[in-house]
Amino acid sequence: MDFSSFITSLGTSFLVFLVLMILFTFLRSKPGNNVVYYPNRIIRGLDPFETGYKSRNPFSWIIEAYSSSEQDVIDISGVDAAVYFVFLSTVFIILILAGIILLPVLLPVAITDGGGKKQSVSKGTFNELDELSMGNITASSARLWAYFIACYWISLISLFFLWKAYRHVSFLRSEAFKSPDEKPEQFAIVVRDIPPVPEGQTRKEQVDSYFKTIYPEAFYRSMIITDNKEVNKIWEELEGYKKKLARAEAVYAGSKTTAKPEGTRPTNKTGCLGIIGKKVDSIEYCNEKINELVAKLETEQKVTLKEKQQNAAIIFFSNRVVAASASQSLHAQTVDRWSVFDAPEPCQLLWPNLKIKYFQREMRQYLVYFIVALAIFFYMIPITFISAFTTLKNLVKLLPFLKSVVQISALRTVLEAYLPQIALIVFLAMLPKLLMFLSRLEGIPTESHVVRAASGKYFYFTVLNVFIGVTLGGTLFKTFKQVQDKPKDVVRLLAESLPGNATFFLTYVALKFFIGYGLELSRLIPLIIYHLKKKFLCKTEAELKQAWAPGDLSYATRIPSDMLIVTIVFCYSVIAPLIIPFGALYFGLGWLILRNQALKVYVPAYESYGRMWPHINNRIIAALILYQITMFGYFGVQKFVYAPLLLPLPIMSILFGFVCAKRFYPSFQNQSLEVAAASALKGVPNMELMFRAFIPPSLSSEKIDDDLFEDFEDARSQVSRSTSFV
Amino acid sequence: MDFSSFITSLGTSFLVFLVLMILFTFLRSKPGNNVVYYPNRIIRGLDPFETGYKSRNPFSWIIEAYSSSEQDVIDISGVDAAVYFVFLSTVFIILILAGIILLPVLLPVAITDGGGKKQSVSKGTFNELDELSMGNITASSARLWAYFIACYWISLISLFFLWKAYRHVSFLRSEAFKSPDEKPEQFAIVVRDIPPVPEGQTRKEQVDSYFKTIYPEAFYRSMIITDNKEVNKIWEELEGYKKKLARAEAVYAGSKTTAKPEGTRPTNKTGCLGIIGKKVDSIEYCNEKINELVAKLETEQKVTLKEKQQNAAIIFFSNRVVAASASQSLHAQTVDRWSVFDAPEPCQLLWPNLKIKYFQREMRQYLVYFIVALAIFFYMIPITFISAFTTLKNLVKLLPFLKSVVQISALRTVLEAYLPQIALIVFLAMLPKLLMFLSRLEGIPTESHVVRAASGKYFYFTVLNVFIGVTLGGTLFKTFKQVQDKPKDVVRLLAESLPGNATFFLTYVALKFFIGYGLELSRLIPLIIYHLKKKFLCKTEAELKQAWAPGDLSYATRIPSDMLIVTIVFCYSVIAPLIIPFGALYFGLGWLILRNQALKVYVPAYESYGRMWPHINNRIIAALILYQITMFGYFGVQKFVYAPLLLPLPIMSILFGFVCAKRFYPSFQNQSLEVAAASALKGVPNMELMFRAFIPPSLSSEKIDDDLFEDFEDARSQVSRSTSFV
Repeated sequence: MDFSSFITSLGTSFLVFLVLMILFTFLRSKPGNNVVYYPNRIIRGLDPFETGYKSRNPFSWIIEAYSSSEQDVIDISGVDAAVYFVFLSTVFIILILAGIILLPVLLPVAITDGGGKKQSVSKGTFNELDELSMGNITASSARLWAYFIACYWISLISLFFLWKAYRHVSFLRSEAFKSPDEKPEQFAIVVRDIPPVPEGQTRKEQVDSYFKTIYPEAFYRSMIITDNKEVNKIWEELEGYKKKLARAEAVYAGSKTTAKPEGTRPTNKTGCLGIIGKKVDSIEYCNEKINELVAKLETEQKVTLKEKQQNAAIIFFSNRVVAASASQSLHAQTVDRWSVFDAPEPCQLLWPNLKIKYFQREMRQYLVYFIVALAIFFYMIPITFISAFTTLKNLVKLLPFLKSVVQISALRTVLEAYLPQIALIVFLAMLPKLLMFLSRLEGIPTESHVVRAASGKYFYFTVLNVFIGVTLGGTLFKTFKQVQDKPKDVVRLLAESLPGNATFFLTYVALKFFIGYGLELSRLIPLIIYHLKKKFLCKTEAELKQAWAPGDLSYATRIPSDMLIVTIVFCYSVIAPLIIPFGALYFGLGWLILRNQALKVYVPAYESYGRMWPHINNRIIAALILYQITMFGYFGVQKFVYAPLLLPLPIMSILFGFVCAKRFYPSFQNQSLEVAAASALKGVPNMELMFRAFIPPSLSSEKIDDDLFEDFEDARSQVSRSTSFV
Repeated sequence: MDFSSFITSLGTSFLVFLVLMILFTFLRSKPGNNVVYYPNRIIRGLDPFETGYKSRNPFSWIIEAYSSSEQDVIDISGVDAAVYFVFLSTVFIILILAGIILLPVLLPVAITDGGGKKQSVSKGTFNELDELSMGNITASSARLWAYFIACYWISLISLFFLWKAYRHVSFLRSEAFKSPDEKPEQFAIVVRDIPPVPEGQTRKEQVDSYFKTIYPEAFYRSMIITDNKEVNKIWEELEGYKKKLARAEAVYAGSKTTAKPEGTRPTNKTGCLGIIGKKVDSIEYCNEKINELVAKLETEQKVTLKEKQQNAAIIFFSNRVVAASASQSLHAQTVDRWSVFDAPEPCQLLWPNLKIKYFQREMRQYLVYFIVALAIFFYMIPITFISAFTTLKNLVKLLPFLKSVVQISALRTVLEAYLPQIALIVFLAMLPKLLMFLSRLEGIPTESHVVRAASGKYFYFTVLNVFIGVTLGGTLFKTFKQVQDKPKDVVRLLAESLPGNATFFLTYVALKFFIGYGLELSRLIPLIIYHLKKKFLCKTEAELKQAWAPGDLSYATRIPSDMLIVTIVFCYSVIAPLIIPFGALYFGLGWLILRNQALKVYVPAYESYGRMWPHINNRIIAALILYQITMFGYFGVQKFVYAPLLLPLPIMSILFGFVCAKRFYPSFQNQSLEVAAASALKGVPNMELMFRAFIPPSLSSEKIDDDLFEDFEDARSQVSRSTSFV
């Protein structure tokens, strides 16, 4: 890639970004698009434009996003979103402070160094960038001290701001717990690995007597986890027919024009996909089916509650402090019986995973780790092929019809600049589903934990495969033998290959933020899908609502891909400081655009009170250590004899991570009692509501409730007894 | 060392053992020695001979020891002693099963192999042992498969019996907790790192309000930890004078003979060591001093309680389950405030260590680890010198007067056989004090934990310095350069040096059990000391009692030195299977003799409910891994191409350790709630007694108690309120 193709790539990225921004400004002002641009506000029943600024002003969203406070974000999108912004702003400030020092110092140092052997930053074709980078410095020159100090500067400010961020997030978490509204999860714990039921007892009696013995006063009641596979299936079928009925009624109502006031009753075929089979009246058919399924559901609900009880339960306490304390305590003598954890939000609890036994969970975990490690290792091979094949020259060879396209010079330049990056992005888009599936397979009991686990896997995947894979890709095959002989030379090899890929990653970062954030803000794809659905598919209000449902911030993929940028920018920050402004722009723009999205678009799927911060923190530290080690290698390549003086840096980072884990992590794992007690002073909540919140929709029905609550009167009398003590 | 000196050494050991046994049988039957041979029984007020067997029968103690049940040991010496016997019997059964298979198989295999190059087991002078060992096998012979299978056999039975033992100890621990007698430590937790006192509050108010908020019902009261240095000093001085007074009165009473009925009043000098200074009447002087000190103590007690309060406290709960749960819960949002742990027995609590802050504790810990690591590393050097110098030839050169002694041939043989071992044992005897001191410096808050920490350090010390040090000692200097070049060759080097030291360790083990256990059983040294003290020093009953106070089993040194034997026997078990019977004898005899001592002699200093088992287990696994790795190296030396098939063994051991830690360790760290609840059904205990048990002797006095208990009435009314709920 030469200089002109680099500039072209930047230019086109920027152009696309501008076009998307104009589209955004234009489309946003149409009231018909409000459900796409303000779904969050609409769902919460707010006026989309109530914020005081004229929405005609194309930059109003910037002012709104910038002036919104952290508390606004917490109120609207929850603590998790606020923590995500802490992450963005922390990296942003680190990069700004890095840029302020590094750019004015390192660039002149590099340009004015004329002599000596030079290392190419752009495979010899892009001399302008070469002159700005560390490769331009004469080997073992005293000028390397400037780069050396830069390494320390970046490491130290990173650790400083990470520490501040961790403290702040810890504070946010405790404040959120202290909030006065009573959440059902704060009064419950989940117990797994319940031993087999003893003779002559039911599961419920076993669980109740166990916990009543330990918590004679605070125990409220228990809910046995059941195998809901069958009942869920019936319930979903029922819901499907209910939707179909609503749709058929809407179609019928729609067909009652003034010309034909009786309308046409919609029909459908009962066979596969509605294509074959007997033709029936839809409304009648659905009504019939619904009646049939309601009866079936009732029977199945009873069967499930009675006969499909599993070895897990949710335990409710009438006291928050006791619940918080119970979730942290060892209940049985061995860990593989009566193991407990704090209940998550009801919607987050993964019922099917609760029955998995302790050692099976452990086994599954290691099995999944093993599979992921294998996948990471073997993905190297296709990735290397991709980055080798997706050059234009190779593509023309494979697909000869492209030849005529390629002859247009401008298009050729653009294609040349973007092809490898696009291939990479498409490739990475396929992964998250697989990783979410694998994480769920581990037996993790809550949704947010699954997301964190998948996000962690995705991070190592991208860093190892994209960053190291692409970096080493070109040189890997020819040096494969060499590596086999001396595996310890990997660090040196990585350090040598880094500069050659600086432009690749520069354009990668630029593409990510111009195109990625442009699409994010303009919501072009959701908009098109919404309008297509509205026009051709949706008949009922509920269907329409589903068509514009905004989803959540999807941390599972968002955080790892941000993390990849962090890793890339850290690793190149000193070698080619020109990447720093790009990185800063990525996180600055990201903060602004996602703030807008968090306030107006996305609806959080769950709340984990910032539990992902320790993971983010650890991964930033991992990126920092990778950066410090490659810099150590690169200083070695540059024949800088004081390179070993860099070794305190990775040690410092490891220590920092260790201190963070010691000091802050426990309160992310468990709720501290002083926090639980702080909000426990509000009296006893309505425990019945707390209990009902955990009943899955497929099991809740008026009739069943009585059955499920057979001991409710007992429990209530118990509560009133224990409340009198508080 | 040649064959005759080996036999001589065994023979003399055995002779000494026999002599000690005869002495034991003889001395034990004298009633005057009862306080030396049955102190445990006397202290508990039992008749020493009540066990049904005639004490005249010299082997009665064997039958008594053998027929005693585990429950007897627990009743008399506590769970810790019972766990120690589980350790001895586990190793014993492993060695018996190893010997049954290995000896009949491996010895013939070795003897009948005639050809090929031979590796010396005894530095070429002791051919009989050579022929019985693995070194006799032709290199890369198919006979090595027998040794290979032996490696697996020993590893597998070790893991199997360790698993059984861990499960059994876990059971013992939970049973002990369930015992109906109420122990003060079960109703208390210790809190450290209390933040600074807020304006306008006292420390006590701060602590009380914090815990009352969290545990409004179960909180009973708190005891603030004070700096007792000053008050302890005064109290000890006071106790000293009280003893002196009793002694002076006894002397005075003794001097009242019929000839001189008024007696002579004893006198002493007030100056340094009673040698210089004014001569005074002892009884009067002591009485004066005591009155003076009692007043001083009272003032100091008040000052201590009011002004020397530290940032730590003991919190008492009126409910065992709440106390157990509280000790496991996170109280504050960050770990360095309000950190809690379960209270140990009152006598175990190290008050001075409680005030050390969280991060200082961490720092101290790593500092101590660093010092110990340095010490381990640099002790290698003197140890190497010792094993080089303590040959007879060298000694004669250094101390020429020994020459005449050495000319007596029999004595010469004995000296030659034992000198290096005796030097080693003396050397190791100096260590424990230092290690206990270092462990206390870490800031560990309980006595039993300090013992465990010291015991761990001692283990690594002995294994690294004695075992590896002695093994490599001879070859270390000449191959030092070699090691420096290729550090990965250490395993090979160790494997090569092992066989050369087989006889050294054989005699070491024999010495340990014949002489060590002989002295242990006969209690010759305590007996002599007791009789000397009784004759020349003791005047009062209390002094006499102190003279025969038996002490405890002193796990801090006993376990590591047993562990060293385990390591030695494991590592040589396959190379020179002849060591197995010696090892089995060590643990079998040890079990029998220490059983006798535990039942009749030692008095446990504390009870940690078997918390040392995880440490023992981990260290046996460490020994096992060392054995497996050296065997891997030794098979390599023997040019056995299938040696890599041994690598699953260390992996299996590591996994085993990991599974044990996951499954069993949590209940050793914390008390499980089901166990706490099982014994909590007995109603509310006398909380005042629980509280008073934790008052250190130097702070407890009638007058002070009122002061200390100023809020006692409050607390009692609170208890009566909370009891009504149970």
